[in-house]
Amino acid sequence: MGEFELLALLRGRLPAAGPQVRLGSGDDAAVTVPGGAVATSVDALVEGVHFRRETASLRQIGRKALSTALSDLAAMGAAAGEAYVWLGAPAEIGEAELLEVGEGLAAVAGETGTTITGGDLTRAPALSLAVTVTGHAPRPEDFVTRAGARPGDALVVTGALGGAAAGLLLLEDPLTADAFGPEDGPGTALADALRARQLDPTPRLAAGRALAAVGATAMIDISDGLAGDARHVAAASDALLLVDAEAIPLAPGLAAVARAAGRDPLELAASGGEDYELLAALPPTAVAAARQALAAIGTPLTTIGKVESTAGTPPRAEIRRRDGAAIPARGFDQLRPHRHR
Amino acid sequence: MGEFELLALLRGRLPAAGPQVRLGSGDDAAVTVPGGAVATSVDALVEGVHFRRETASLRQIGRKALSTALSDLAAMGAAAGEAYVWLGAPAEIGEAELLEVGEGLAAVAGETGTTITGGDLTRAPALSLAVTVTGHAPRPEDFVTRAGARPGDALVVTGALGGAAAGLLLLEDPLTADAFGPEDGPGTALADALRARQLDPTPRLAAGRALAAVGATAMIDISDGLAGDARHVAAASDALLLVDAEAIPLAPGLAAVARAAGRDPLELAASGGEDYELLAALPPTAVAAARQALAAIGTPLTTIGKVESTAGTPPRAEIRRRDGAAIPARGFDQLRPHRHR
Repeated sequence: MGEFELLALLRGRLPAAGPQVRLGSGDDAAVTVPGGAVATSVDALVEGVHFRRETASLRQIGRKALSTALSDLAAMGAAAGEAYVWLGAPAEIGEAELLEVGEGLAAVAGETGTTITGGDLTRAPALSLAVTVTGHAPRPEDFVTRAGARPGDALVVTGALGGAAAGLLLLEDPLTADAFGPEDGPGTALADALRARQLDPTPRLAAGRALAAVGATAMIDISDGLAGDARHVAAASDALLLVDAEAIPLAPGLAAVARAAGRDPLELAASGGEDYELLAALPPTAVAAARQALAAIGTPLTTIGKVESTAGTPPRAEIRRRDGAAIPARGFDQLRPHRHR
Repeated sequence: MGEFELLALLRGRLPAAGPQVRLGSGDDAAVTVPGGAVATSVDALVEGVHFRRETASLRQIGRKALSTALSDLAAMGAAAGEAYVWLGAPAEIGEAELLEVGEGLAAVAGETGTTITGGDLTRAPALSLAVTVTGHAPRPEDFVTRAGARPGDALVVTGALGGAAAGLLLLEDPLTADAFGPEDGPGTALADALRARQLDPTPRLAAGRALAAVGATAMIDISDGLAGDARHVAAASDALLLVDAEAIPLAPGLAAVARAAGRDPLELAASGGEDYELLAALPPTAVAAARQALAAIGTPLTTIGKVESTAGTPPRAEIRRRDGAAIPARGFDQLRPHRHR
């Protein structure tokens, strides 16, 4: 089977196109009529860098590639629109396996209302996906950037943090094998849920739109870790972000995994990354409405800190325990060779 | 230097943003307001598959990644808009080298009026670029797809074919070393030009818009080879495409390289691929206007055949010599392991 036949097969598994799509995959380019403002982002997953095929299924790899790209749109408060996918695969990955990756992409597309309108398939030395996604809003000012956090704003976070880091430890660190007791014990479901946080994250699209609607002034998805992502918001907003470490909502099971691995659960929650929750700044008057809107879609929202003026000092984010000790703001660097991802 | 610092440096080398861009690279997503119809395509270049660093400079690799992506927009008759670039690089490629790739991207962006509005930088086992490009037109029907060729239409092609294949032979096949005589002889400039066709192709954006404006009914860029790309148009248009092999404009120097390599120049021109010229179907009444419009921008246009009804047979493209012999319609398959690209 050649590239074109395989692309046609993959196309056959995709959900129906959204209303903005006039011409889908298969021509030189797809054609859309956005009718408003468009947010666009590109994200990539590479075997041996972001995942290992020993621990992630092909379907999960396809799912995660689209979900992590869509998470950037969630952080803009955008409605998911289209996706353009490059799939690079080594010769030893057969057609049936590539279709599994495609099924993962198609499943997330269906769940999120995304239309996969373009694809390119080439050989590559390792299984790789680069996904460009577009999201929509009526006007450009409807999108929430990282740049609008103001002194006095509350800092809120969706869901719970540290789950993806705990999942990675369960997958990679032998010390965590007994974190929840015997393999078929009552902790198995918890361990599975943590691994799923790492392997198959959920983009918070509805929560992002809800936070934008109630007036979020700045927003970012937590992909690099709370410390690093809060620093991005601080830099873009020229503000000081103060996070109360003990207020950070911790993923269920994180404490047990951290204990087994000899790690600090708070540090994992603050810098582990890949949780794909949203961190937003909100005027204090909007917090109640935000919590109510997110409760309606089943997403917890927790106030974890506040925005202050830099008062002339460099913009920065500080995550402090109540005893005053700072959680080290370890940045997340995909190019760091010793780190698996 | 981390990912974020390097991305910031790369951003600093980019040309100014186009009018549709409201928020450029650096946030979770870029924001644009297209104000009409958008054509979007994704294309990738991978080391060892599409290029080798022994023969292509880093700047050329950056240039080609954006140029080949933009060629798909040229084939739609679109005006170049934005580009979103994933750059994957192995650890041994240093920052200065990545900036050279970025300079190649930035140069083509400047030459074509493209805004690079998004980027992602990760590790990868081989130098890889996936580029998603968007192009614009007032209305979706202003774009030219592959699907509108009608019986009676003339088939035209821009520029000359076979140059990229000849360039690849000069780069890869030792038999061609003496194709133009001694290395510092009068044929050197011709050899350089052919290698440049392979390493640094030019997207025919202005020609594509001109052909769309005079009423092209179908259009495609010749990336896979004339035979294969004509077949795509035939299939999409449900038509029979007849190409007169002897009418195909051959790149200067192709004959000498083909002779040295023991290849048929016509077959190279028909199936070599990567010329990134445009093949279009035009109503016969529009051919003179098309030739005039392209002459005004310095692009040759040659009539090479015609569109006929399939008369109930399967849609297909035939490239025939005047003696009736068919040029084999070899498809181009990036996944074919023995082929360098």
